[in-house]
Amino acid sequence: MIFEVVVEVRLRAGIADPQGATIERALPALGFVGVNGVSVGKSIRFTVQAEDEAAAHELVTDLCHRFLTNPVIEDSEISLQVAETSAN
Amino acid sequence: MIFEVVVEVRLRAGIADPQGATIERALPALGFVGVNGVSVGKSIRFTVQAEDEAAAHELVTDLCHRFLTNPVIEDSEISLQVAETSAN
Repeated sequence: MIFEVVVEVRLRAGIADPQGATIERALPALGFVGVNGVSVGKSIRFTVQAEDEAAAHELVTDLCHRFLTNPVIEDSEISLQVAETSAN
Repeated sequence: MIFEVVVEVRLRAGIADPQGATIERALPALGFVGVNGVSVGKSIRFTVQAEDEAAAHELVTDLCHRFLTNPVIEDSEISLQVAETSAN
C-alpha cells in the first residue's frame, strides 16, 4: 500500500523562534492586528510504500527521529493517509 | 473570538524543490526505501482575533497573499479552528 504522509516539524516550546518573532513584529506595520504567537515550522510531504498503516507509521517515526528532525530542539507530528493499494 | 490558525505554504507544482530532492536522494543510503515525492514547505502557526470565522478567514487569506507567501511560486492552505471566545 502507498500512504501519503505529512510531517510537521515544529520547534519545541521554549526554543527561540526568530522567524516567527520577525513575522509577528512586522504585522502591525502592514495593518494586521490581533495576530499573536506566530511560530514557523517545516511541513514535509512524501509518499511511502509499506505493508500496512502500522508499518508505515513506524518507518515514518524512525525517519523523523533519525533524519528529518533534530530531536533536541524539534518536535514532529505525523499524519498518514492511504493513497492507493499496490494492486492498483 | 480567538482562532488557532495553521497555514501550510507549499511550492507550486513544477517549481524546483531542491530541499525535497536532497532529502529524497539521501534516504536510500540511510536504509529507507519506498519513500518518494518528497517536498518541503513551511508550516506557520498563530492565533488571530476576529469577529467570526468568515472574518478570520478573510484576514488570514489576505495575510497569506500579501506577506506569508510568494504567490508566483507558492501556494497556501489555511486551517482555522476556534481557540476560545473573547468572553473567556
